[in-house]
Amino acid sequence: MDLESVKKFVEKDGGDYEFTVDSMPARFIEPIVMQGLKIDRIERGRVVCSLTVPPRLLNTGNTLHGGATAALVDIAGSAVIYTMGAPTTGVSVEINVSYLSGAYVGEEIEIDSKALRVGKSVAVVSVDFTSKKTGKLIAQGRHTKYLPVATSKM
Amino acid sequence: MDLESVKKFVEKDGGDYEFTVDSMPARFIEPIVMQGLKIDRIERGRVVCSLTVPPRLLNTGNTLHGGATAALVDIAGSAVIYTMGAPTTGVSVEINVSYLSGAYVGEEIEIDSKALRVGKSVAVVSVDFTSKKTGKLIAQGRHTKYLPVATSKM
Amino acid sequence: MDLESVKKFVEKDGGDYEFTVDSMPARFIEPIVMQGLKIDRIERGRVVCSLTVPPRLLNTGNTLHGGATAALVDIAGSAVIYTMGAPTTGVSVEINVSYLSGAYVGEEIEIDSKALRVGKSVAVVSVDFTSKKTGKLIAQGRHTKYLPVATSKM
Amino acid sequence: MDLESVKKFVEKDGGDYEFTVDSMPARFIEPIVMQGLKIDRIERGRVVCSLTVPPRLLNTGNTLHGGATAALVDIAGSAVIYTMGAPTTGVSVEINVSYLSGAYVGEEIEIDSKALRVGKSVAVVSVDFTSKKTGKLIAQGRHTKYLPVATSKM
Repeated sequence: MDLESVKKFVEKDGGDYEFTVDSMPARFIEPIVMQGLKIDRIERGRVVCSLTVPPRLLNTGNTLHGGATAALVDIAGSAVIYTMGAPTTGVSVEINVSYLSGAYVGEEIEIDSKALRVGKSVAVVSVDFTSKKTGKLIAQGRHTKYLPVATSKM
Repeated sequence: MDLESVKKFVEKDGGDYEFTVDSMPARFIEPIVMQGLKIDRIERGRVVCSLTVPPRLLNTGNTLHGGATAALVDIAGSAVIYTMGAPTTGVSVEINVSYLSGAYVGEEIEIDSKALRVGKSVAVVSVDFTSKKTGKLIAQGRHTKYLPVATSKM
Repeated sequence: MDLESVKKFVEKDGGDYEFTVDSMPARFIEPIVMQGLKIDRIERGRVVCSLTVPPRLLNTGNTLHGGATAALVDIAGSAVIYTMGAPTTGVSVEINVSYLSGAYVGEEIEIDSKALRVGKSVAVVSVDFTSKKTGKLIAQGRHTKYLPVATSKM
Repeated sequence: MDLESVKKFVEKDGGDYEFTVDSMPARFIEPIVMQGLKIDRIERGRVVCSLTVPPRLLNTGNTLHGGATAALVDIAGSAVIYTMGAPTTGVSVEINVSYLSGAYVGEEIEIDSKALRVGKSVAVVSVDFTSKKTGKLIAQGRHTKYLPVATSKM
């Protein structure tokens, strides 16, 4: 791809949706990523959700966008920390995701999030994305958070 | 937080925006994350962008959402690979992000993406997010992609 | 710590063991890390080992050295890929490790390594370190490798 | 490789070096990895070292062992935190490494470690490994540590 085409790929301004996107309310990224999530199972230290891959979360290859997967790791990690009774989910320190196979539109996936550790100050959650139909792993991520004590700063 | 509250945090259905979100077109996640990105500098193996943090990409703590940051690492990594003349950006293998400080609404940030390696089959890009005003690092990520040869499968 | 002390911490030359270390044979790092590993279970895509934490692998805090843990993730990942019948374990693309709790000298730990994906070109293995006595997770890592086709370069 | 061969690859006991390795003193892993490191430059928040790749740190492919690289990321990260005047380097939370090209025996490499953030409780250091001769990146890692306050537990 020549540099002019890369520029067009990156700069989305002036597209059909410019006005719609620019007028979106604060924190709209969360419903955009999470809408359609259903909890299948919830307990202390574990949250299992289902999601049917919606068209809006596809990438140009028509599989679940890697950025959406990472955002789901972020959100699922916070949900698990909430189940431990923490008054806050703290601040993110690190997120990583391995992408293992593609998930297609309409495919039902399971998002299984487990606390690996919830200490006084550091919590780590692992998140597995699996195809419900094939049982194949789609992605695996980990989310590390710092849980600040009331009066301290990270 | 009790489990019923966590459930409400995760399941967004029935909210004010349910219809709006459910009717979004395919691949809408990209303009939502990318709208407003401007290229400051582009060359072979390097893309430097600016973004003024928009309200829609905030988290509940009112700083740039960690999932949005990760999605930007995903997208910036692909843009850099395009600048190397690769006909495709391949498929994501791994993304990681360290979160270093918060970025607030209206803050202008620089997103500096560099190819660490673009080989025949594996490419790795690093992405630095910096506050233009303070020069402080906001986040650092890496994006690893597999560049499939025409006839092969990952 | 003042900079002169940091310099002394980093530069080990002139210590008691300088001659011993400098005369070590090629590839000695592997037996140093692996000596004492026992296989508890091995099958296609899975290798479970035991290790009693030896004094030589401790850090200055007297728990299993984070570098040794990372080296074990490296080695365990390769072993799992061998079980899949691959003629080579390929080259490492990425290793990550989350450290969850300390392992002490004489403690018996289980190292459970599972293939998350072994494709034609990319393999990903997860590795869990658990205390046999307490069942507590000590660390969790992932190892991504590229499996080159006979005639290609990464 | 058949499973019996994988078992032999993993279980090093009974080898020529068994006695030597088993009688190594406590914390010997550090001089084994660090012997030969020279500091080229040291300042608050930055440590640049040189290392000539020694035979003992090679892998079976005769390049610098990925486990040794990860151990160096661990150690370099701690050294940088020491330069900030922290009384302790804390405990490791996460280490990650991307492997970009091989380093051969006798090759002189530069290990450049920079503090990305040293806060009250969380520190993050990036580490670049570069070939001095070719200028090529060999690896890039990040090391996240938790710096416990005197009276608190992670």
